[in-house]
Amino acid sequence: MRAVAITEPGGPEVLREVERPDPEIPHGHIRVAVRYVGVNRADVLQRLGGYPAPPGVPADVPGLEYSGVVDAVGAGATRFKPGERVFGLVAGGAYADRVVVHEREAVPVPPALDDEAAAAVPEAFVTAYDALLTRGRLQPGENVLVHACGSGVGTAGVQVARALGCLVIGTSRTAEKLEKARALGLQMGVHVTRGLFADEVRRMTHGRGADVVLELVGGSYVQEDLNAAAHRARVVLVGLTGGGHVDVDLRMVLTRRVEIIGTVLRSRPIEEKILAAQVLERNLCPWLAAGIVRPVVDRVFALAEAGKAQEHVVTNHGFGKVLLKV
Amino acid sequence: MRAVAITEPGGPEVLREVERPDPEIPHGHIRVAVRYVGVNRADVLQRLGGYPAPPGVPADVPGLEYSGVVDAVGAGATRFKPGERVFGLVAGGAYADRVVVHEREAVPVPPALDDEAAAAVPEAFVTAYDALLTRGRLQPGENVLVHACGSGVGTAGVQVARALGCLVIGTSRTAEKLEKARALGLQMGVHVTRGLFADEVRRMTHGRGADVVLELVGGSYVQEDLNAAAHRARVVLVGLTGGGHVDVDLRMVLTRRVEIIGTVLRSRPIEEKILAAQVLERNLCPWLAAGIVRPVVDRVFALAEAGKAQEHVVTNHGFGKVLLKV
Repeated sequence: MRAVAITEPGGPEVLREVERPDPEIPHGHIRVAVRYVGVNRADVLQRLGGYPAPPGVPADVPGLEYSGVVDAVGAGATRFKPGERVFGLVAGGAYADRVVVHEREAVPVPPALDDEAAAAVPEAFVTAYDALLTRGRLQPGENVLVHACGSGVGTAGVQVARALGCLVIGTSRTAEKLEKARALGLQMGVHVTRGLFADEVRRMTHGRGADVVLELVGGSYVQEDLNAAAHRARVVLVGLTGGGHVDVDLRMVLTRRVEIIGTVLRSRPIEEKILAAQVLERNLCPWLAAGIVRPVVDRVFALAEAGKAQEHVVTNHGFGKVLLKV
Repeated sequence: MRAVAITEPGGPEVLREVERPDPEIPHGHIRVAVRYVGVNRADVLQRLGGYPAPPGVPADVPGLEYSGVVDAVGAGATRFKPGERVFGLVAGGAYADRVVVHEREAVPVPPALDDEAAAAVPEAFVTAYDALLTRGRLQPGENVLVHACGSGVGTAGVQVARALGCLVIGTSRTAEKLEKARALGLQMGVHVTRGLFADEVRRMTHGRGADVVLELVGGSYVQEDLNAAAHRARVVLVGLTGGGHVDVDLRMVLTRRVEIIGTVLRSRPIEEKILAAQVLERNLCPWLAAGIVRPVVDRVFALAEAGKAQEHVVTNHGFGKVLLKV
């Protein structure tokens, strides 16, 4: 098979196309002929050497999500036949024209989605759904604050929260992205210029504050989240592009009874990965099929241009997901 | 009625015995002739002016828990008859020989408990149960870390966690308190001398760490909790005697999928107060009646010695609860 591998830790130039033997198909697994791959910031961290792949995953081939067609079915696998369209999450190895997954980790693509759109779904929507609903216990009518609302997870988070009838406030450091997010259901936008947004959020919510925060920036944003938090708020920490440390006012956490909840998809064990796939299949596919939520594709690069695609992700200039066409 | 009031913010000398008119009994409420009152650190903060009583509570009379007998029953109240023994939580006003509570906030005292022991139960055990089980979702077999395990909440937390069959590790800055806590079921103790305990906790749990932390100290302990945290740990923040700020390593929160959960009983609205009373009645009274958990009384002072009692609480020299006899 053909893959893009990290030849050594470094810049985009260390990504090279390589030939590898086709992977074995263990009992209960399927092999997928990949058509599109989602590019994530985690892929860049892995390339730089800072985010090693978990055990059991190719250490040097990045890629956390794919769409494609079932290519071969292993012994004991009964859910799919060759030729069926599938998409899903993997812990690594998706920058390739073949991936092998447990059949319960793969999800049938709704007919309404083409292969390109499908590859823009798994990481963004499962992360947003898991953070907002599963971990954040978002309820209809609550106030939601979505940071970096032009990112893949941000564009998904805005739509998931809107699908529940919540008031959605987004932040971005680019005013133009707030405008674009309105088409996804964003009701109010805060253009963040000096790391401050809490006063605006409190004003927009008539003093109540945000019940759930989808925190994709980290760093000092987390204390601002507390400043913007409603009583019993849940701050769900998914990304740390803005820094890994923060001075927290614990009195605020205690008296407002706030929860700060850390979450990450990639390092979960197989049973939790399958649960994540079930969220995609049971909860998100009906919304995708009905057009209640839709993936946002920013740009598509060829697999051989993976380095260029990663550089584009890092610039933060895009809106939505960056994909590789295999 | 007779009460102890805060005449002005200040030291223990500002607490004075006063005569007040007997309180009205609203619809659905009962009046209790108080026998014992628990003394809490929050009472001291209130005396110093830093922890005002919530609306609807006497602003100048501290006291968050009581035991006593029903003295009079208001219109529409059907749960109790005069003469029945009750105990429970109030949002303030318990340093008095009469308190008025909603009948669903009062709980019948199990016959196995005398009035003195009963007054040592509500705040300590409801706080510990709520933090460990309701907010912390403690499961049998998990590893629990209880800080300040000689405090009222600490002594309750050790017993609640043991009742679930958990491995309980306690910390204290006094070695003697760790010894005393062994009689309550504490299996391992960490004598904290310079704010460090994570290495010890990890060693004692064979590398896994603590699944739930009952955090009564706050400040830099919270980062040490993260250092000691198992994957998917819940750090439940109940007290801040050690400080209100901490520099948090967010990467640890995210990759270990930790939850930092703030909680406080006093400021909750009536429906949540009643839920807390139901925890006392449904979940804790059977354990108290069966001797599975038992309150720990450190010292009993006369109501008129409330200032002295508060000073004793502040010294941190005791083990268990400090009470006032009315």
